[in-house]
Amino acid sequence: MTADPCLPECGVARFLSLLEGPWATLIVRELLRGPHRFTELRDGLPGISPHTLTSRLRQFERHGIVIRTAYPEIPPRVEYRLTPLGEGLRDVLDAMAAWAVTVPDGESTVTA
Amino acid sequence: MTADPCLPECGVARFLSLLEGPWATLIVRELLRGPHRFTELRDGLPGISPHTLTSRLRQFERHGIVIRTAYPEIPPRVEYRLTPLGEGLRDVLDAMAAWAVTVPDGESTVTA
Repeated sequence: MTADPCLPECGVARFLSLLEGPWATLIVRELLRGPHRFTELRDGLPGISPHTLTSRLRQFERHGIVIRTAYPEIPPRVEYRLTPLGEGLRDVLDAMAAWAVTVPDGESTVTA
Repeated sequence: MTADPCLPECGVARFLSLLEGPWATLIVRELLRGPHRFTELRDGLPGISPHTLTSRLRQFERHGIVIRTAYPEIPPRVEYRLTPLGEGLRDVLDAMAAWAVTVPDGESTVTA
């Protein structure tokens, strides 16, 4: 599944390119709760590597989904937050969650 | 991202466990167009391996998202189609596509 620079025409495939891998969607889930620092994001996503978090955030920045703001303070403070385009993902994640909670755990094979 | 049998509580994480990896969502996209045979699915998803397709379909069956129907014909005919639970994914994929087509290609970094 290749990402930039040329995204697939098909909307679903395009989505999967932009939010490639589970971490991307989970990062958006965190940012939908408000701006986060890098360490806050990392702590909110147990198991994510700094490398993965950095590369996903950079991809999001490239596509105008996330804004990185560096505040001229000592010590320096850097925050990530969703742009309006990124906020548009709220409907998608809400739809994901609304569907997923209706799916029972474990075995529920339906036989025809 | 482990799948069965115990799915995460959080709806988004639960969704990502159920539709783990890009192929899972693309398989659903194909099945939203109607029942498919295995070979039709495989041909509609260039690059997918038979192993991945088989394991995803089995997981979907286990969770009641897909029904596998074997018709007593010669030669035998097997079809996969979405259950009502699986059809419920239409809203999610529509939301994915509706958002993704608003995202411009390539570089569009927004600076604060």
